[in-house]
Amino acid sequence: MNVICLDLEGVLVPEIWIAFSNETGIAELKRTTRDEPDYNKLMHYRMDILRGRGLRLSDIQDVISRIRPLDGAREFLDEIRSRYQVIILSDTFSEFASPLMRQLGWPTIFCNSLKIDSCGMLEDIRMRQENGKMKAVEALQGIGMKVFAAGDSYNDLAMIRKADSGCLFRAPENILRENPDLPHCTDYSAFISIIGEAFK
Amino acid sequence: MNVICLDLEGVLVPEIWIAFSNETGIAELKRTTRDEPDYNKLMHYRMDILRGRGLRLSDIQDVISRIRPLDGAREFLDEIRSRYQVIILSDTFSEFASPLMRQLGWPTIFCNSLKIDSCGMLEDIRMRQENGKMKAVEALQGIGMKVFAAGDSYNDLAMIRKADSGCLFRAPENILRENPDLPHCTDYSAFISIIGEAFK
Repeated sequence: MNVICLDLEGVLVPEIWIAFSNETGIAELKRTTRDEPDYNKLMHYRMDILRGRGLRLSDIQDVISRIRPLDGAREFLDEIRSRYQVIILSDTFSEFASPLMRQLGWPTIFCNSLKIDSCGMLEDIRMRQENGKMKAVEALQGIGMKVFAAGDSYNDLAMIRKADSGCLFRAPENILRENPDLPHCTDYSAFISIIGEAFK
Repeated sequence: MNVICLDLEGVLVPEIWIAFSNETGIAELKRTTRDEPDYNKLMHYRMDILRGRGLRLSDIQDVISRIRPLDGAREFLDEIRSRYQVIILSDTFSEFASPLMRQLGWPTIFCNSLKIDSCGMLEDIRMRQENGKMKAVEALQGIGMKVFAAGDSYNDLAMIRKADSGCLFRAPENILRENPDLPHCTDYSAFISIIGEAFK
C-alpha cells in the first residue's frame, strides 16, 4: 500500500507565521527558525507577543481562517488522495492547522499541539515527539507501507531520506544545492508525475 | 495528539460483499467469514465466481460506486475530522474502497490490495500484514498518538483492546455478550459523545 507524507507549509499552504504577520501587521512575528534556530525559544517569543497584544487562540484561528491554501493545492490533494493514501506531517500545531485543513477537505495531519490557558491564551507548546516527521515515516514502513515523502525545508530532509522515495517541492536554493540527488519540482502537475513514477 | 481508528464496513458503509451481492443478484457472494473462516480461501472462492462471470475490476468498481455510505456517515466523519485525526483501518482492498472513499470525502484508509491480471481480472489478494489493524494502532501509539478505536466485528477487537480507549458500534449480539466491558452505541451522536468523553 502506497502512502504519501507531505509537509504542509510551503507545499499546500503558505508559511503560517508569515501569512499571520501579513494579515495582522505584526512585523515581529516574521522571525523564523532562520533567525532563532531554537524552536522552543522562538515559540515562546511568539507567544509572548500574542499575549502582549491580548490575542487569544480564537482570534488567531480567526485570522488563520482567512489564509487561503496555495493556488491549485486543493485540486492536487484531491487528485493524489484518489490514487494513494496521504498523511500531512507538519511541525505546526493542530489548533493552527484546523482552519486550513477545513479548506483542504480534512486531510489527515500529524503535528504538534498547544497548551491553552483558562483565558484562551497560548501558554505552552506540546511537541508530539523529537524528529516526528522521520519517525512517522518509519512507523508507516513498519506496518507494510511504501512511503513517498516531500517537503521544502531542512526539517523535511530526514523524512524524505527515510522514505522509500521522495522529492523536494519549491525548495530554496541552499537546500537544492546541498541535495542535488533529490528530484525537485515547482508545480503540482510535475509533482504528480514524480509520485506516479516513484510508485510505478 | 488524538487519532480515531475506525473500521469501515458496518461503521461507515454497508458490508461491501453483501451490498455487491444484492446489487448484482449473485447470491453465492453472500458467503462470509462466518461460513468460511479462512479468509484467503473465501477470497479465492469469491474471485473464482467473479472470473466465471467475466467480471473485471472495473465492473466491480462500477457496482461499488452505486453503493452508498450509511445514512449520516459522511456528516459523522466530517464532524470527527474537524476535531481529531481519523484513519480508517479495514481488511477490505483499496481497489474496492476507492469508490466509497470518494463519497466520504477521501478519508485516509489503511487496508489491503488486489493483484489484477493483464485482462483486468482479480488474480490474488495482497495482505498488508498479519493483524494489520492492531499493529497500526500500536504504530500510532509509538509516535506519540492517543488512539480511540471502534468497530463492529471480531477482527476489530484486538485494535480496540490495544487502543487507549474505544467502543463497539452496531455490533452483533454475540460480540456484545462476550465484551460487556466495552461501551457500545448504535447511532452517530452517541458515538461522538463516547469519543469526546474518551479524549477529555
